[in-house]
Amino acid sequence: MTHAQPPYLLTPGPITTTQTVKSAMLRDWGSWDADFRAMTDQLCQQLLTVANARETHVCIPIQGSGTFAVEATLGTLIPQTGKVLVLMNGAYGQRIAKTLAYLKREHVVLDKGDYLPPMPDEVEALLQADPDITHVTLIHCETSSGILNPVSEIAEVVARQGRLLIIDSMSAFGAIPVDAQTLPFAALISSANKCFEGVPGFGFSLVRRDILIQCAGQAHSLSLDLYDQWQYLEKTGQWRFTPPTHVVAAFLQALAEHQAEGGVAGRLARYQRNQQRLVAGMKQMGFSTLLNEQWLSPIIVTFLSPQHPNFNFDDFYNRIKAHGFVIYPGKLTVVDSFRLGCIGQLYDQQIDQVLVAISAVLDEMQIESGYAELPEHNAVTA
Amino acid sequence: MTHAQPPYLLTPGPITTTQTVKSAMLRDWGSWDADFRAMTDQLCQQLLTVANARETHVCIPIQGSGTFAVEATLGTLIPQTGKVLVLMNGAYGQRIAKTLAYLKREHVVLDKGDYLPPMPDEVEALLQADPDITHVTLIHCETSSGILNPVSEIAEVVARQGRLLIIDSMSAFGAIPVDAQTLPFAALISSANKCFEGVPGFGFSLVRRDILIQCAGQAHSLSLDLYDQWQYLEKTGQWRFTPPTHVVAAFLQALAEHQAEGGVAGRLARYQRNQQRLVAGMKQMGFSTLLNEQWLSPIIVTFLSPQHPNFNFDDFYNRIKAHGFVIYPGKLTVVDSFRLGCIGQLYDQQIDQVLVAISAVLDEMQIESGYAELPEHNAVTA
Ligand SMILES: Cc1ncc(COP(=O)(O)O)c(C=O)c1O
Ligand SMILES: Cc1ncc(COP(=O)(O)O)c(C=O)c1O
Repeated sequence: MTHAQPPYLLTPGPITTTQTVKSAMLRDWGSWDADFRAMTDQLCQQLLTVANARETHVCIPIQGSGTFAVEATLGTLIPQTGKVLVLMNGAYGQRIAKTLAYLKREHVVLDKGDYLPPMPDEVEALLQADPDITHVTLIHCETSSGILNPVSEIAEVVARQGRLLIIDSMSAFGAIPVDAQTLPFAALISSANKCFEGVPGFGFSLVRRDILIQCAGQAHSLSLDLYDQWQYLEKTGQWRFTPPTHVVAAFLQALAEHQAEGGVAGRLARYQRNQQRLVAGMKQMGFSTLLNEQWLSPIIVTFLSPQHPNFNFDDFYNRIKAHGFVIYPGKLTVVDSFRLGCIGQLYDQQIDQVLVAISAVLDEMQIESGYAELPEHNAVTA
Repeated sequence: MTHAQPPYLLTPGPITTTQTVKSAMLRDWGSWDADFRAMTDQLCQQLLTVANARETHVCIPIQGSGTFAVEATLGTLIPQTGKVLVLMNGAYGQRIAKTLAYLKREHVVLDKGDYLPPMPDEVEALLQADPDITHVTLIHCETSSGILNPVSEIAEVVARQGRLLIIDSMSAFGAIPVDAQTLPFAALISSANKCFEGVPGFGFSLVRRDILIQCAGQAHSLSLDLYDQWQYLEKTGQWRFTPPTHVVAAFLQALAEHQAEGGVAGRLARYQRNQQRLVAGMKQMGFSTLLNEQWLSPIIVTFLSPQHPNFNFDDFYNRIKAHGFVIYPGKLTVVDSFRLGCIGQLYDQQIDQVLVAISAVLDEMQIESGYAELPEHNAVTA
């Protein structure tokens, strides 16, 4: 593995990748060729292994971004007669509801606003009250605020109520432990360019085989028909349509580096360390996090924007970028915020450097640190 | 530009790319960042320029493979009340009909089988007989046989009859001239990894602005809603969902190399030269092309498999691969065939080398050259 170079992306993906991951793209593959078919098979087997799901689930990669993989999973798994409970606490939960509206699948929403988690007992009450609900969707880490939703507790409730759970684990899988043998899910979706630290170009879904087998002819789209993609993969070892060959090659290298770092545990440890170092440094400068400690994920953290007349996000962004770091805008409806990602090729050194850069930029913009604090917004609890 | 290295792909894509195209992927981009937004804008403007379409059309890139771009275009442009005439003479025309079935859009098919082109007068008669037909789809180069369909003549007929033409120019655009000011089309679709010689990961559609503006709310899919993708691009300069940043960077380099080669004219000249050299050499060894000279495209050529007891495609394929060349299986329903692509980083040297390799492999397999001929199948005319 060779280390990444600036600019460093403190974003929720695309993230900073190693030079070795990128260098894996320096050759061409025939998508029909046995070499590439073996690469696809390896990719699927390794992802299933990470989730301890080889016995029960299949892995289906799908071209496009993560949203494509989510839509493919929803469209393929939910029959026309299904009804979905959408657990929503941010932009990605909203996107699932929007997708279901396109697909004309009936759905109800539990909307917790910008930063409160859906609670297991609320979910259970909703399911008990409405036996027509067949599927529940949950965002693992809601990247818009950075909140880590209580996935195990909710999965337990959904299973107890005999419904099927679809987890959008886009920004969590690879760094947050997932064990299919203890966490009951029908499907779990993620993509190449988040915690596995590959480059963007495809997503994938881990789907329970006994469920998928019943999903022929359900999809609303040829390109996004996960059942058809799976059947073709099983029969030929190939993706149905041209795969992003170079991106797949980079992902295999990323998987090897993930394993070398100690798999999910190793990666989680590094991201947690990044997050703690970042939050501590930011707090020292007077910044506040949107969420209470208990809901902070090791993936991305939302900070409240300084309530200072000199603060302007675009200016702040460009000045930090001049130091070699790309940060991320907020995605909240109510309060002004920005986000700093902890994932990708970031280590102590980069975290310390970005803190120095932010401090320098605050000075340049003549924003005194006291102004960054907004304690009344930091009192969010579930 | 630095030259490509083996294995050389004699396939219809992914194709062999230059080392400089691949090397453009050796850094990371933030998809939200101004640098990347400028790259997207440049990509769209350059593609419109290649088609002389800047005044009339917009370019919308879409994540996924070419099929995704075709489906996005069909789903977005054709209203529920529309009716489509699908001109079909191979696998990619069939795929359009299959897509329309998924989308539940009414359609009729003119099916010419494996290798006959749809003729303008037939198309005109069908349109005259059925005023309900709103759209016509045509494959520019039907890659399954390699036939170059009579696109100008058909476009003229469709325009005269007041219908809208959607062209799948996946394997043609970039090497076959397209001038939107003389070739009337509502949409023309292609992808990164064919004649522009980029790496796979996205497709794009050039759509008439005055038509697209009427297409809000028509798409069957959020991910594949070309109207929504366009609106978001116009407003923010960004793709709606994570773009394949590295693939886009490679494509910009590929566009620069396309221009340096003399644009469409330069590329066409090289591909034509490749094709002529390849066909001449193959004929010398006793092989026959499926199509008559007049319908051969400079993109890919279908050769009939030797009718010899020793011939076995997998064996033939693997032996040629050992020489550093990846060839492509046939996709015909009636006769045994294989295909050799002329696109990608192939020059006289590679064509000569693959001919030598094929000759050596025929010897190894003890197939005498006479057996390759099948003149009765070569009498195909329109
Ligand atoms: C939780 C979650 N879901 C879905 C997505 C959408 O992924 P993409 O942008 O690749 O379509 C993201 C992207 O950040 C995400 O964080
Ligand atoms: C004419 C044509 N249409 C559509 C496609 C499908 O493209 P993809 O494999 O990228 O989905 C191809 C691929 O070769 C093609 O040649």
